[in-house]
Formats: sequence, structure tokens, C-alpha cells
Amino acid sequence: MNMKQHVTVEEGVTEIFSKLKEVGTELVAAEEAAGRILSRDIISPENIPPFRRSPLDGYAFRAEDTLNASEETPVVFEIIEEIPAGKAPEHRVGPGQAVKILTGAPLPEGADAVEKFEVVETDGKIIKLVHPYEHNCNVVPIGEDICEGALVLKKGTVISPAYLGILAGLGFSKLPVFKKPVVHLISTGSELVGINEKLTIGKIRNSSIYTIKAFLEQEGAVVKMSPVVDDDMLEIATAIDDASEEADLIFTTGGVSVGDYDMLMRSMDYLKADMLFWKLQMKPGSAFLASYYKGKPVISLSGNPASAIISMFLVGIPVLRKLSGRTDCMLEKCQVKMESGFSKKNFTTRYLPGKLIVKDCEAYIRITESQGNGILHPLHGCNILAELPKGSPAKNPGDTVTAYLLG
Amino acid sequence: MNMKQHVTVEEGVTEIFSKLKEVGTELVAAEEAAGRILSRDIISPENIPPFRRSPLDGYAFRAEDTLNASEETPVVFEIIEEIPAGKAPEHRVGPGQAVKILTGAPLPEGADAVEKFEVVETDGKIIKLVHPYEHNCNVVPIGEDICEGALVLKKGTVISPAYLGILAGLGFSKLPVFKKPVVHLISTGSELVGINEKLTIGKIRNSSIYTIKAFLEQEGAVVKMSPVVDDDMLEIATAIDDASEEADLIFTTGGVSVGDYDMLMRSMDYLKADMLFWKLQMKPGSAFLASYYKGKPVISLSGNPASAIISMFLVGIPVLRKLSGRTDCMLEKCQVKMESGFSKKNFTTRYLPGKLIVKDCEAYIRITESQGNGILHPLHGCNILAELPKGSPAKNPGDTVTAYLLG
Repeated sequence: MNMKQHVTVEEGVTEIFSKLKEVGTELVAAEEAAGRILSRDIISPENIPPFRRSPLDGYAFRAEDTLNASEETPVVFEIIEEIPAGKAPEHRVGPGQAVKILTGAPLPEGADAVEKFEVVETDGKIIKLVHPYEHNCNVVPIGEDICEGALVLKKGTVISPAYLGILAGLGFSKLPVFKKPVVHLISTGSELVGINEKLTIGKIRNSSIYTIKAFLEQEGAVVKMSPVVDDDMLEIATAIDDASEEADLIFTTGGVSVGDYDMLMRSMDYLKADMLFWKLQMKPGSAFLASYYKGKPVISLSGNPASAIISMFLVGIPVLRKLSGRTDCMLEKCQVKMESGFSKKNFTTRYLPGKLIVKDCEAYIRITESQGNGILHPLHGCNILAELPKGSPAKNPGDTVTAYLLG
Repeated sequence: MNMKQHVTVEEGVTEIFSKLKEVGTELVAAEEAAGRILSRDIISPENIPPFRRSPLDGYAFRAEDTLNASEETPVVFEIIEEIPAGKAPEHRVGPGQAVKILTGAPLPEGADAVEKFEVVETDGKIIKLVHPYEHNCNVVPIGEDICEGALVLKKGTVISPAYLGILAGLGFSKLPVFKKPVVHLISTGSELVGINEKLTIGKIRNSSIYTIKAFLEQEGAVVKMSPVVDDDMLEIATAIDDASEEADLIFTTGGVSVGDYDMLMRSMDYLKADMLFWKLQMKPGSAFLASYYKGKPVISLSGNPASAIISMFLVGIPVLRKLSGRTDCMLEKCQVKMESGFSKKNFTTRYLPGKLIVKDCEAYIRITESQGNGILHPLHGCNILAELPKGSPAKNPGDTVTAYLLG
């Protein structure tokens, strides 16, 4: 076997990306599109606003009529109409004429300046203006927000709540998006039983897969869990082959270490899968196998929950994002302080899951020690991973570390 | 009308909370429970692990047999069995006996110490140990992770991915949760048209409601949008009455200011709703009406998108969380630095939406100026709100501000 071994996280991601094809596309109703990924550039079909509008409650008139206005010689205008928001003006504003206009309402033809209610003298029939106004004073021009033909959002952008509002404002009742990737999770391990089953001696429940499922769903995947598979080459191969029918991406857990019961690589060999690399230069999570089977990426994680979840974050999530059509696939990198210390030296690059804490304008990573409630408890609220490079010494509270933001 | 006016955000939230009843409960399958809120305390039905297990690949034996072991006088043990993870031991370990044991496997009766493979001399049939071991050396005791009867998670906790894994590990295939609150959104304003409709002069599309919908869905609500309602007292009252049949919480937009076309209060009056307060001491978002109608909270937001969304964050989201059964309802408060300046003095408490940025271990709020793409664009990626108190001066880049984290 001449595949690569012990690759860095970055090399591993690049390797998997090189053969990855994004999923297909579909049209979805705008109200269902939040969080989806645009599959086409969005060009504005119209000007927003499509008419000149008033940004305040006031009066609209012709600026040129105010040329000689002053405190001593106010110019008087006749109010010919009232225009609330949503109403089309009925009259053209001529010399010496004004309209009462409300915020957001369209300016009538002729008018090219607006003054707010509070500063205008009026008896309800006429207004008096006491200084000159410039052309387009307090007028929101056509297309100020978005011009017709402008590139509004690029292919590969996640539709945030704000972007959804912008797209709705442009009249897109349906949006072109990438399909949600279908991810299958296959747990392997003869010690595992389903969560409905009674524990017998030696068995543990297949629990961390639920954590993995929930994290992948937060990233927009449709996740399906297969029943637990024993440490058996053919059973594992069959489960992967079955999953490949529907899945765009397959995750397995367990069986990727070096022991007698580690069957994953043998199963992939049996399937004549294209194995890309084995083992990552990271701790926890070094036990890892990346393959393609029938054109689908298969990411094989460790059976150890912490290892599985951390390599799922660092490699699995970028792969899922790329598959989803996103252009921003990598986890965002930043520098934070360690809230508490970490006493071990790091012979391999080590990743610590934690929670981003903001205290007195400083950003910390809070690492929960694994104590009580098992290995999954430290992952509660996990939204950041600290990276302690290979060879780096133990860390004291307040030390700076590089970290990766999740989600 | 003797209801309160111009209340602070905190007073407003407290006022609405005082009459709020949380939604009902249901049982959901564990695989659908991520993000849901626990409706009961969760007590562990069993010990995790339920048996003594090995934390490493090695050999298990009786510690008392090693009492006199040394480099000079190694003690020899016969290997009587191999126990992989998931297998129940077949034999009891007696004096001078050992078992080969794999990580996670149950210790056989009799054995009370484990040593790892790498440091043990063996020919595959016997092992030699060269120093004494203490009782329970390298043994994970029963219940180390979670003890039977222990309080695992409290009612009102959001089921994070990590917590879901813990609950699955305890065998909860169904979980008691609060129902997802049903929220109805009613947009009022004669200037609004649906997003499918062609814009005519003076009309704008009902777009910011899509942004509000997406933010509320992120908080776990099931959100339904009613068709746009004109500025008409009876039409608005009818829409609210219709929504109250199904909704646990109703949001309206528009019609809560003081103008001739502001109908909301008149509609609530007509419905004999219980109006709690009008207007908040905040900018933007001061136009605001809080009521109860048929026991359901009705939160009436401004028709201005920025105002509506910011008061939705500060008041609407805590109300939605409380209704959802959450115990942590308020937005998390912290101190951050302003990345850019803000030139205006603040005559009212002002809130600025932005994005939390971590740079060189410091936490900043990045405020996008509203330019191009309209009022919704600055809300892209919005996950924090800066609070500039009433009377505070303009802010320079690097100034410290109090901020509220969203989500």
C-alpha cells in the first residue's frame, strides 16, 4: 500500500478537496432558503428603491422656487396633496406648489427637495420656507440601495437572515441553491449497541454519533445514521456500499487504528476504494482514513469520541462545506488567550475544544476538563478549537494560542 | 389610556415575562432532539460506565499478586483470555493469572489492575511484571462518568450536540422537550406588497419580515407569515385575531408610531387586548407596543426594518426563549472594543448591530455602515449588539462598549 501517511490537517483537506464535486442544485421558496448556499450569482433585476422617495415625514417642493427665500422674505407654497407611504402621487408639483409627504413615500414629478414637518411653518393649507434648498435635498434617489444589473451576492454565499431579506426585497420568491448534502454515518465496533438496547457487560451505547450528527446538521447536512456494524470486514464493506447509493458523503467511526480488530482499511481494500491517506498529524484524532468510493468521499474517524469529533471539525466540516457549494470552507482562524493552563508538552500538534469567552474586551478559549459526564461533556457549547503546535511547551493561563472558530 | 410608556428594554422584558406561560411539552426521538429544550430534569437511570473498564490496551491482573515484584524478581502471570472491547470476560482471574485486555473492555472479576502492552515483557503466553501495583491502578470505576440517580441536565437546558450524545449514552431514545413555539408574523403597511408581486409606484416589497423569520427560526420557533395587511384598523384586528388561534406568540410590524396611519394601537383597543406598554427607551426601535391578546403575547415592532429587527433582538428573542421553556433567556452581556468610531452623540440609549471580531486576542464589534444594498445589509453576519448609553459621547475606534451576544 503506497498511500500517504501522517499528513497534516491542511494537506489532508487539500487532498480530499482535489477530487471533490459539489452537490447538485435546486430552486427553493424564499421562505425556506435561510442558511442555504446560493448556486448562482444574483444580479439585481431592478433598482431599489425603484422611485425617488422621501426619507422623512415632511413637505416636497421644487428647490428652484426657494432660490430667494429668507427669514425676511419667506416663500409660500400651496399644499396640493398628501402622499402617505405606498400611495402613488396624483399630481405633478408645479411652481409654488408642495405636497405633504410621509417617510418612504414616492416624490411626485416636479418636486426635487423635502423639508421635515418640525421646522416648517404651516396652517395646513400653505407652507412657508425661509431659506434656499438644493436640488435633491432629502431625496433618496432611484437605485440608492441596489442598482439594476448590479452583482448582489455571489455563488457559494450562505444566505444569512439579512441576505434573505435583501433577496426578498428584490422580488426573488424562489432562489437557486445547492441541494443539502446527504451524509450517512456508519458506526463500527462490536462493543457498540443502539441507544434503545439494554447494556450487557462490556457493551457501550453508540452515543457520540448523535453529537456528530447534530454538528453536521448545524452545517446544513441531511444526516442519516445506519445501524451499528460489528468489527467485521464484510459487514463494514456492505454498509459502506449500501450508504454510497444515496449519500454524498460518508462518515465512519471506529476501526482505523492498528489493532487486530481495526477492519476499516481492510474493508476499503476489499471494496477497491481509492484510499487517499491514513493518519493525521494531530492529537486527538490521528487515527483517520480518507478514501473515495464510487466517487463519494468516505471519511473514517476514530472510535474514540473526542478523536472522532475533533477530526470531524477540522477535516470533515471543510469537506462538507466544499461539497455544499460554499466558497468559505475552512474554519476561521484567530488568536485567543488560554483562560486556564494546559500542563502537557505537545509532541504532536494538539487541538483542544473549548468555548469562546469574551471578558473585558479580551477573547479567551475556555477548555472544560473531561471530568464527570464522560468524554462528551467538554464539547458542550464548543465553538472554538485551540491549536497547540508540535513541540510547543505547556501553556499558562493568559498565553496566546491560534484557534479555529466553528460555525 | 394609562399604560406605561417609554420603558427601558429591561423593564419591558420583565413586564412581558410577568404574564408569560411556557408552551406545552412533547416526547421526541433523540435523533430529532438537537437544539430542543428539556422539559424535565434528566436523572441518570444507570451508571456510566456500568462496568469496570480498561482505559488502555494492556493486561489485567490481581494487584496483590505483584506485592513482591521487582526487576530482580519479576512475577510471572499466565494469560488465560483475551478481552476485546464489547466482549464479556469468560473467566475469573485467579492468583498468577492475567488477561489481555483492550481499551474500553470490561475487567474480569478478580482483576483490579491494568498495565499497558508497551512496557510488559511477554511471549504471548505469559507476562512478567517488575514492580508492585496498587489496587485499581488503570481501572476506570463503575459510574466514573455518571452515577445512577445523578442529576444530568436540568429542565430548561438547550440540548447541544454534546448533551445529545450524553443523553444517547444514557439510553434515552426519546426525550421530554418543550414544543416548538409557533410564531405568526403579521406585516402591516399599505405601502407593502408581497415578494411575488410587481412593484408599482410608491410600493415596496415586504422583505425585512424574511430576515425576522430567519432569526426567529434560528432560535427554534416555527414561523408562519400572514399576507400583508393594509393600514386599516379592522383588517389588522382581524389578522391578529386569526393568528391568535394557532400562534403562541405574534409579531406585527408597522403602525406603532404616532402618525395618522398608525393603526396598531387602535386595532388592539378594538380587540380589547391588554396593552402593557408603548415605546421603548432605545434607538432604533423606540416605536414598539407590547400587548397580550387571548393570553398570547403580541409584540408590535416598527415598520422600519432596522428598528424592527433590533427591538426583535432585545425584547422579542428573550420573550421567545422564555416561551420556549429556556432558563437562559437574556442575551449574554460582555465588553468589547469598537473597531471603528461612531460619530453621533446619544440622546437615547442606542444599539448598533455588528459582528464579533477576534483580532490578536481582543474582541471587537465591527459595525457595517448602511451603504448600498439598503438597510438590511449591515445585519449580515450580525451576532452582537453594542449598547451606547443615553448621554454617552461619540465613540472612537478602540473605545470599550457593553454589548449583547446573539444566539
